[in-house]
Amino acid sequence: MSDYQVIGKNIPKIDAKLKATGQAQFLPDLKLPQMLYGKVLRSPIAHGKILHVNTARAKKLIGVKAVITGEDIPDIPFGFSPATANKYPLEKKRVRFVGDEVAAVAAIDQDVAEEAIGLINVEYDELPAIFSPEEAMQSDAIQIHEGTKQNLAGTIHREFGDIKEAFKTSDYIFEDEFETQAVAHCCLETQGSLASFDYNGKLTLWSTTQFTHVLQDMLSNALCMPPRHIRVIKTHLGGGFGARMPMDSIDGIAAFLAKKTFKPVKIMNSREEEFGTNRYRYPMTIHLKTGVRNDGTFLVRCAKIITDNGAYYNQGVSVTSSAIGKLIGLYRVSSAKVDGYIVYTNKSWGAAFRGYGGPQAHFAVESQIDMIAEKIRMDPMDIRLKNVNQRGDKTIHGWKITSCGFKECIQKATKLAGWKKKRGKFKNRGIGMASVIHTGGGSRQSGYNFSSVVLKLKNDGSIDLFTQSADLGQGSNTILGQIAAEVLGLSIDDINVISSDTDLAPPDLGARASRQTFTTGLAVKFAAEDAKKQILSKAAKALNSDTKVLAIRDKKIYIKGRPRKALELHKIASIYFDENPIIGKGIYIDHISTISDPNGYGNFAPAYIFGCQVIEVEVDHETGYVKLLNVVAAHDLGRTINLACAEGQIEGGVVQGIGFALTEKTVWEEGEIINTSFLGYKIPTALDVPSIKTILVESNDPNGPFGAKGLGEAPIVPTAPAIANAIYNAVGVRIKTLPITPEKILEELEKRGKKDGKKINSY
Amino acid sequence: MSDYQVIGKNIPKIDAKLKATGQAQFLPDLKLPQMLYGKVLRSPIAHGKILHVNTARAKKLIGVKAVITGEDIPDIPFGFSPATANKYPLEKKRVRFVGDEVAAVAAIDQDVAEEAIGLINVEYDELPAIFSPEEAMQSDAIQIHEGTKQNLAGTIHREFGDIKEAFKTSDYIFEDEFETQAVAHCCLETQGSLASFDYNGKLTLWSTTQFTHVLQDMLSNALCMPPRHIRVIKTHLGGGFGARMPMDSIDGIAAFLAKKTFKPVKIMNSREEEFGTNRYRYPMTIHLKTGVRNDGTFLVRCAKIITDNGAYYNQGVSVTSSAIGKLIGLYRVSSAKVDGYIVYTNKSWGAAFRGYGGPQAHFAVESQIDMIAEKIRMDPMDIRLKNVNQRGDKTIHGWKITSCGFKECIQKATKLAGWKKKRGKFKNRGIGMASVIHTGGGSRQSGYNFSSVVLKLKNDGSIDLFTQSADLGQGSNTILGQIAAEVLGLSIDDINVISSDTDLAPPDLGARASRQTFTTGLAVKFAAEDAKKQILSKAAKALNSDTKVLAIRDKKIYIKGRPRKALELHKIASIYFDENPIIGKGIYIDHISTISDPNGYGNFAPAYIFGCQVIEVEVDHETGYVKLLNVVAAHDLGRTINLACAEGQIEGGVVQGIGFALTEKTVWEEGEIINTSFLGYKIPTALDVPSIKTILVESNDPNGPFGAKGLGEAPIVPTAPAIANAIYNAVGVRIKTLPITPEKILEELEKRGKKDGKKINSY
Repeated sequence: MSDYQVIGKNIPKIDAKLKATGQAQFLPDLKLPQMLYGKVLRSPIAHGKILHVNTARAKKLIGVKAVITGEDIPDIPFGFSPATANKYPLEKKRVRFVGDEVAAVAAIDQDVAEEAIGLINVEYDELPAIFSPEEAMQSDAIQIHEGTKQNLAGTIHREFGDIKEAFKTSDYIFEDEFETQAVAHCCLETQGSLASFDYNGKLTLWSTTQFTHVLQDMLSNALCMPPRHIRVIKTHLGGGFGARMPMDSIDGIAAFLAKKTFKPVKIMNSREEEFGTNRYRYPMTIHLKTGVRNDGTFLVRCAKIITDNGAYYNQGVSVTSSAIGKLIGLYRVSSAKVDGYIVYTNKSWGAAFRGYGGPQAHFAVESQIDMIAEKIRMDPMDIRLKNVNQRGDKTIHGWKITSCGFKECIQKATKLAGWKKKRGKFKNRGIGMASVIHTGGGSRQSGYNFSSVVLKLKNDGSIDLFTQSADLGQGSNTILGQIAAEVLGLSIDDINVISSDTDLAPPDLGARASRQTFTTGLAVKFAAEDAKKQILSKAAKALNSDTKVLAIRDKKIYIKGRPRKALELHKIASIYFDENPIIGKGIYIDHISTISDPNGYGNFAPAYIFGCQVIEVEVDHETGYVKLLNVVAAHDLGRTINLACAEGQIEGGVVQGIGFALTEKTVWEEGEIINTSFLGYKIPTALDVPSIKTILVESNDPNGPFGAKGLGEAPIVPTAPAIANAIYNAVGVRIKTLPITPEKILEELEKRGKKDGKKINSY
Repeated sequence: MSDYQVIGKNIPKIDAKLKATGQAQFLPDLKLPQMLYGKVLRSPIAHGKILHVNTARAKKLIGVKAVITGEDIPDIPFGFSPATANKYPLEKKRVRFVGDEVAAVAAIDQDVAEEAIGLINVEYDELPAIFSPEEAMQSDAIQIHEGTKQNLAGTIHREFGDIKEAFKTSDYIFEDEFETQAVAHCCLETQGSLASFDYNGKLTLWSTTQFTHVLQDMLSNALCMPPRHIRVIKTHLGGGFGARMPMDSIDGIAAFLAKKTFKPVKIMNSREEEFGTNRYRYPMTIHLKTGVRNDGTFLVRCAKIITDNGAYYNQGVSVTSSAIGKLIGLYRVSSAKVDGYIVYTNKSWGAAFRGYGGPQAHFAVESQIDMIAEKIRMDPMDIRLKNVNQRGDKTIHGWKITSCGFKECIQKATKLAGWKKKRGKFKNRGIGMASVIHTGGGSRQSGYNFSSVVLKLKNDGSIDLFTQSADLGQGSNTILGQIAAEVLGLSIDDINVISSDTDLAPPDLGARASRQTFTTGLAVKFAAEDAKKQILSKAAKALNSDTKVLAIRDKKIYIKGRPRKALELHKIASIYFDENPIIGKGIYIDHISTISDPNGYGNFAPAYIFGCQVIEVEVDHETGYVKLLNVVAAHDLGRTINLACAEGQIEGGVVQGIGFALTEKTVWEEGEIINTSFLGYKIPTALDVPSIKTILVESNDPNGPFGAKGLGEAPIVPTAPAIANAIYNAVGVRIKTLPITPEKILEELEKRGKKDGKKINSY
């Protein structure tokens, strides 16, 4: 189909063997000579003033090398942006959630560190704690942060088009309230940080971070050290999913302890700590009001969103803003209004999580669409097809759709799933669908969206590629290697990718917002093209030819059509060829997306991706148990760079989406998370995962590398509403709160049974 | 004096703190998870055929993971050049010295590895062993390598000018024979190698090497693997001095064992092994015949050199060739003839050693000059000054002297030492001098002489400098950092030097032939100038000015004379400035030196350095003990880049030269080295080292970076003849064989006492 040699091929991840054999070094594997073990003392109460911290007994314990409290560190908060940050690595005045960091020790081993933590005595003056946003917004509620009102971390108001008029002309108006829960990222290894100072005063920090470059800047700020004195290295990572995006307290604490002891200090969350202080997906309550014509045209979509922000300012406002954008952007609507309230509570602090507000918004919108379709007696597939975003569209809030496989995704997914054949045809079985819109190349929401890479041609004709993008397991290093190889006529084996080390590679914003394939991919493409231009120019001289008629393939440069008279690449690569080594540089700065205006108008992303999932379920009337039968997931990724990586992203997203839909929930009791293990916190196991068929839709984005767009986040987004819709299709029960537990289904079945005594199979 | 901000300053080495505090990681400090310990079984006999190697018992020992012999590795010899290589990492047919590698094991710890070595049974058919070149050259001697005659590894014949005529016109002809001994490099840590394969088949090898890039190539050849699958990393090094230049057997053995066990394998020589198989300085017997006019003009210098090459082909021919070049090149002579014979013996194999033939040649020439001076009744200083090389000279064998501080070195050193005041004035005290000529920037003897570096400007205005040159402790990373800083108006603290890792930096021949300051220094200068050009071009646009009137200083770019209107460097460094990151590339290929023609004519080096040492001694008539009183060492280094590094090189060279002159000698008994510890092998201690005054002569080489030339090797060269001459001046005893032990002095004193009964103080 394509002329590509490397792109689109099913090339194994370049680190697959290392990981499959246990050879890849993850942070838990790292150990330095003389390394100390750090441990954090966390608040046992949800809210209170710190009156006194007595570390005397801990300091006396043999094997303890340092004990620090908030008094020992600079008064500099950290967070998603310096302007709004209000979290300190160690709190010295007040604690705001169970698990808040109060003190830390470094000791010769983990046992001594834990014993020392137990010897630190903290006196608290307990304050009333608030666990729900509604309570927090009461006028008489205690303010978790001084200077706030109604405990609001932020509010967002967006209005586009003539709402009043739109509702007036609507044939139907739908109003529903949806709720999504806090879920945990559940990375394979817990969060960790290993800090080591040398006698030149330089800090090296190995971290489970998704962005080395930004973490270097954040640490520079937190530690009052110039960036050049800080080297951040990402280890192999078992997923990030957004949890590893801003600096973590333990990055700072490890560094402070390492500085104090002048020994390497490693801190790794225990799994209980990781769950117990989890950087959950922001729970949202979405009150959704939609006006439609009786032909199914969406006219107006309004919403009020209340986001449970947790105790500190991180990405709550940004995620809510992103949720609002997607809530408005998904399918064409001609007017919209959304109000968002992001509210502090005495829970740990939420974070980015794959989808970045998308799963919450889509659960509401895609659930309600099925309710609308039923009401106006349209097939849910048809109502969606009627309203799909299309290439060339500009949404009412300014998103420019440069490429769009949305329609194709719906058509292909429903066809492969047997939509028409299965819908409403089998007892207790149902089939449901939902779609997704998402960024396919990052966003300038935080002001910047760029990548830069350097590559150099080595003497033997192979390439060293230096990038600060982060391979979290998704295979980005392989993708980037493929792009370089494709441009340069090499094989993936010829590309040595050196990534995620601030000392070695030029800046890149790292792994977030499904950006790396797009932005870093472009930077790599530009760098490879830069190198290729230099190579061809040299070859043209040597072959007494013109660069225009030259091609590179299999490490040879030849005149097109005359492959026999070829010049070997390693000859040009020789330092002696013309004494001008070939170094390609590539930079991509996103000038397509814009920073939104104060009203939220602007082009959110340089490219948008779309997808549609069709899921078949069977619901047990007796137990409420939902058995998943089939998933078909069609996703528009612009262009497939690596088949297995793309399929892996989709499958992983669906599985994570299944957990979000059915089983996962962080459970608090009096502010304390009580399900802090994989026994109590239920992610899908292999037995819970049905057959997943993936369809890759190539819409060929005009701006992406080889037409590619990022894919990473989208696959998690439509899964929950597709399951909710399938359940409704199976047993006529509409659950608007996640997760959809058997209890909720049984309760609804029971209610309905009492009401009319018979089972309805929806249209 | 100079306008330089960074160059010439006494800036501490950038790794000084790390080393002074023990934080720098040397190879003995490295430990990888699951690492095995390798150990080599070495031949106990000096010469013999290997009949059978029985490894069965060793393999059965619990804890042994692999046992390999020559049968397990490819039949590929290694050495200084592939064409002449005749050494295998493990020998399978024949052993040629006590210590020759026969088998190796990898085991869970060092004890088990050693026990296993003891369980390997090797049957030898012992052959006659030859320990002296004279014996080896006998027509009936057994040939240590098949196909040779007279056991010659090589012969060299050089003749320039009309020898016959020159001797005819000479007023005096002097003929003397000098002998130099085998000495050991005595690096702070022993030779070692740590090899680790990953499941992608990539080998990473940490080695005590002086040249990562060349070792990568050599390993590629030895292991039959492409270079891109081999990563060589140099650890911190406690000196190399030439011992760590070619691949070592244990580099190969560690790699083979790592491949076989699929575990990291580390091999470190014990100190006994290091001494016992030592890569000694090639001993030479130099028969020197010189013709002079009675005014002191040197007319003709002839020599026959016999070099004890040891058992395998390494650098014996190259070092002898280099010795010949210096023997002819030192001081002006109008004709010369030298014959060199490099002879295999059943000793370990010699290697490069600081000075590369210079110490041997200079000992002969500089000793004889004092004998000449005495005979024609000239002051040794004056005869030297009469014949010094001068800028603009072209020697009879083609060396082009582009810069020359020779005369100044002699004048300044003798003046500071009080030559005229002290010479022959104090009983039992003497003062002697000797000079040196050496390359100051590598050589193309092995075909190539190049360096390349890359540097990138980081967001904060600091620099990452990637180089594959090797800092062996001499401070080259600091020197290179200073050069970059000087060009770019930065401080040394702004330069992050990333060195000696084949995956990261572009090629460089590494640390040899005093080349790094010159060749890598030039590459760094060019790269920094390349970056500066880019910076100024950007600044010119921003300041609406012209690059010609712009300057950089203190991380600011300003219009000369108007420092207030300055643009900060980090602004230009921002990826957002104009989306064109600044990467400087620099390459230096030596086109000044030439590959000599078959007769040895050619320009040996791109620059030459000179020096003169004046040494004062006191000799005890009763014991023969030589007490060193003062050393003055004046060296022409073109331009001082770092004061402390330059002084350090000179002081280190003098101390090593003292050992060479007075105490150091490798002692064989029946082919076995018997002084294998620092008890038996005597290097100077702090108590043996007198006051050393250094004088830096700046001759400002037209081709060197800021006029600089390499300095590294020269300081060891004149020390021994200067001491020999001082001893003669003190007690009238001329010792022509090194080391000059008390026994030799007493013997000569006794002989002379018998002859004329009185002490002579020479003129």
